[in-house]
Amino acid sequence: MNAQPLRIGITGLNGRVGRLLAHEVPAAGAVLAGGTTRDGRPVEGIDCPVHADIADLARQCDVVIDFTHASTVVGHAHALAKTGTGWVLGTTGLSGADQQAVDQAATRIAVVQAANFSPGVTLVTRIARQMGAVLPGSEYDAEILEMHHRQKVDAPSGTALAMGRAVAQGRGIRLEDHIESGRDGHTGPRADGAIGFAALRGGQIVGEHSVIFTSSHEQISLTHRSFDRRVYATGAVRAAHWLRGHEAGLYDMEDVLGLPRD
Amino acid sequence: MNAQPLRIGITGLNGRVGRLLAHEVPAAGAVLAGGTTRDGRPVEGIDCPVHADIADLARQCDVVIDFTHASTVVGHAHALAKTGTGWVLGTTGLSGADQQAVDQAATRIAVVQAANFSPGVTLVTRIARQMGAVLPGSEYDAEILEMHHRQKVDAPSGTALAMGRAVAQGRGIRLEDHIESGRDGHTGPRADGAIGFAALRGGQIVGEHSVIFTSSHEQISLTHRSFDRRVYATGAVRAAHWLRGHEAGLYDMEDVLGLPRD
Amino acid sequence: MNAQPLRIGITGLNGRVGRLLAHEVPAAGAVLAGGTTRDGRPVEGIDCPVHADIADLARQCDVVIDFTHASTVVGHAHALAKTGTGWVLGTTGLSGADQQAVDQAATRIAVVQAANFSPGVTLVTRIARQMGAVLPGSEYDAEILEMHHRQKVDAPSGTALAMGRAVAQGRGIRLEDHIESGRDGHTGPRADGAIGFAALRGGQIVGEHSVIFTSSHEQISLTHRSFDRRVYATGAVRAAHWLRGHEAGLYDMEDVLGLPRD
Amino acid sequence: MNAQPLRIGITGLNGRVGRLLAHEVPAAGAVLAGGTTRDGRPVEGIDCPVHADIADLARQCDVVIDFTHASTVVGHAHALAKTGTGWVLGTTGLSGADQQAVDQAATRIAVVQAANFSPGVTLVTRIARQMGAVLPGSEYDAEILEMHHRQKVDAPSGTALAMGRAVAQGRGIRLEDHIESGRDGHTGPRADGAIGFAALRGGQIVGEHSVIFTSSHEQISLTHRSFDRRVYATGAVRAAHWLRGHEAGLYDMEDVLGLPRD
Repeated sequence: MNAQPLRIGITGLNGRVGRLLAHEVPAAGAVLAGGTTRDGRPVEGIDCPVHADIADLARQCDVVIDFTHASTVVGHAHALAKTGTGWVLGTTGLSGADQQAVDQAATRIAVVQAANFSPGVTLVTRIARQMGAVLPGSEYDAEILEMHHRQKVDAPSGTALAMGRAVAQGRGIRLEDHIESGRDGHTGPRADGAIGFAALRGGQIVGEHSVIFTSSHEQISLTHRSFDRRVYATGAVRAAHWLRGHEAGLYDMEDVLGLPRD
Repeated sequence: MNAQPLRIGITGLNGRVGRLLAHEVPAAGAVLAGGTTRDGRPVEGIDCPVHADIADLARQCDVVIDFTHASTVVGHAHALAKTGTGWVLGTTGLSGADQQAVDQAATRIAVVQAANFSPGVTLVTRIARQMGAVLPGSEYDAEILEMHHRQKVDAPSGTALAMGRAVAQGRGIRLEDHIESGRDGHTGPRADGAIGFAALRGGQIVGEHSVIFTSSHEQISLTHRSFDRRVYATGAVRAAHWLRGHEAGLYDMEDVLGLPRD
Repeated sequence: MNAQPLRIGITGLNGRVGRLLAHEVPAAGAVLAGGTTRDGRPVEGIDCPVHADIADLARQCDVVIDFTHASTVVGHAHALAKTGTGWVLGTTGLSGADQQAVDQAATRIAVVQAANFSPGVTLVTRIARQMGAVLPGSEYDAEILEMHHRQKVDAPSGTALAMGRAVAQGRGIRLEDHIESGRDGHTGPRADGAIGFAALRGGQIVGEHSVIFTSSHEQISLTHRSFDRRVYATGAVRAAHWLRGHEAGLYDMEDVLGLPRD
Repeated sequence: MNAQPLRIGITGLNGRVGRLLAHEVPAAGAVLAGGTTRDGRPVEGIDCPVHADIADLARQCDVVIDFTHASTVVGHAHALAKTGTGWVLGTTGLSGADQQAVDQAATRIAVVQAANFSPGVTLVTRIARQMGAVLPGSEYDAEILEMHHRQKVDAPSGTALAMGRAVAQGRGIRLEDHIESGRDGHTGPRADGAIGFAALRGGQIVGEHSVIFTSSHEQISLTHRSFDRRVYATGAVRAAHWLRGHEAGLYDMEDVLGLPRD
């Protein structure tokens, strides 16, 4: 046990995720050491130093949690590598050059990079891959069902597709070659080895995903329900704590959860 | 309690449904009084008189259970009305003239006519209508989810559509104006008052249907699972027993279950 | 459509339910006309007149929503009857004398009294009774499953028991004679006609209840999930709106939902 | 791909499991090379040589599938080791000496021994252990829910307990120290780190098991449904096929499914 509480900095402190994180950090026994906003002005209701320049924040922290915009990634990579500050990176939409900057930083600092910090989603996606490897498509029909709030404008959800890709990966096939999504009308029989998708919409459901394998004799289904967007903040803070015992390198949430690499 | 066991006849005795019924009749405490086949020859493994002409069967029975082809309906209507034999009618695809013959017969004999004799499906469809009436579309998003075996060639299932129509009827709208089936790709947000459908396929699932109402604050869902096609035979025999206390008229499974007319 | 927005008063304005209601009233298009607290002092964050005496509130409102303590019931009954103000009453634990005062008031004003104002729970309980009537215990095994947050100290939940009583009522039996709750160890086979209960606990689940009927051939299940305690406030405000078209009498949430009396 | 179809022998050919296996072997592309019955007489409806002595069977087969009684184990071990025949062993209730004979045989032949040959149950139990390791009991409440037919006389089921033990093993604790089964009455709040069990009974449900992890923010649940007892036969034949590429040793269904040892 480390005697000193972890000192965490948060980029984009006045954004929706930034505020969730600011609430979660002390709840998880860490210290909110500071944050950044575009103009460096204090954020109402959050009591910590605020900077405009990430370099100023980096010097005050053990780890920076960073959910901002892809345009900030190169700058953040340089600043954090320079001060040796750990980096929990949830920003998405990175270009090849952005990712290269991350990889480069990871030769000097420990970085946890993930598209989804929910421990449950990480675990379920991993298990979906494992199930795909063990339950052959010739015998077990794989279906992915998701439900989200009524405002959602696309289907299937990104997480549903990620789960489908995990099943495909376990089976050594490409999802694009086997996807059956949005059945309606005369569909014909289910294709051998297909991976099916169906989408429900309603209310304010944060997100529910099921991966369902059905054979003639049995059914195995794995379901994840998010009650609360705070689960992403909790996972990111867990990643920050995990970073402190680890040397330079690029890690993901499977590492944080201690899932063995396969 | 009637002292005499009910005498039941079965049309199409050598068909799949006929065989299920032949097994179910004695199991339900009734007597299998006879059956018909096209050629009037006995059916292997079923021990009862077999006729080619329904008139011969009708004279031996209190009730005939009839799951055959629409082309037989007019003839059956005349024969059963003549002998005063009750009629449990599950044949589908009737023309207007066929239905007229049924209606005409029902002025002289008691007829239970239904598309689905499962007590559970009947009840769930009825409740779906009731829920539609009580849970307004402005607040509660209605979705119908169904799962069937991998051989099924269309979506949504007929029963799913019947449940959707029941919700629409409860709301005083037409399903066709509000259906959202098979979401995939850029769908836009859920339309106000929509009734959504999603279809899963896999294994040898006989049939599972859910009607799901989701508001911002709560969710009510109603699910029916068929384990076994025998449920249709069981329901038809229940209808046959029910017929014996009832005068001439056209009834449906809601009547058999004792659901109050609304 | 009534031109004037409904004027609603709230007792116990500074309590947990009072605050939820104060938020819900304007959201539902009504006017928050005032409230009571024990000392009549204003409530921080809620902008409306506050009284110590319900008589003062009653004169300002069309309807009073009242979730307080049984000791207040007799006084509230007299005050509201005197001014002809409608009464939505969710207070529980009433003595015989308290209930008599309510009944007496209901000869002069319209009262909606209920233990649970969730439209979903009301509907599900009603349907459970209907299912009990239609699905005989000799054939359909009834089970009630509930899940609640980890702090809950008793099992089954009150709502689960109410659903079980509804099934029993539909079957014309007494729940106490047929309950099987908390199976563990050597239980012996399920008793004919039993109504079973099982309880799950975990996380911060607000409340999930399922009524499950299983025969040899099919299964019908009805599930209610509460996402949010606000559902009770929403239901109470819906009851207040409903009251305005109705003459003196004692009503319940089934009336508000428009379920036919049976 | 091996050119020759696998030759499989079945002990206890006239028992319930024996008959299921006799049906499954040719369906899976193997040859039913023979079986044993106590008296060596042919079994009606199954067309293969029948022996009274396992040594006679062993000489005709590549693999023997053996679901009989513990009293046969020592004899079978010697006979199969002598002829070098593979052994799929599902017999339960073995004494220490019986197990020693199995271990001894496994130095000379390949043996797959398991209590449950369902690929789904094997996989779900394995995943339950993994989830236990990753989802800490301080944050994720683990519950096991099972449903079985109305004749079942004990609760929780053996498979439910095996899943609970797997969760406990993943957490490095003993199930006995943390079990909460059959909640009823005044239970008090859920104990920290408890593993809860609940049992439903009804109809002819073959077996359904869920392992449910619930935190304040999310829920992960894993469900297995058996539609059909044939799943055990299918799994045993899969094990028989798997055995043919493997050298002497003692294996289990996790090996057959290719799950990495941990």
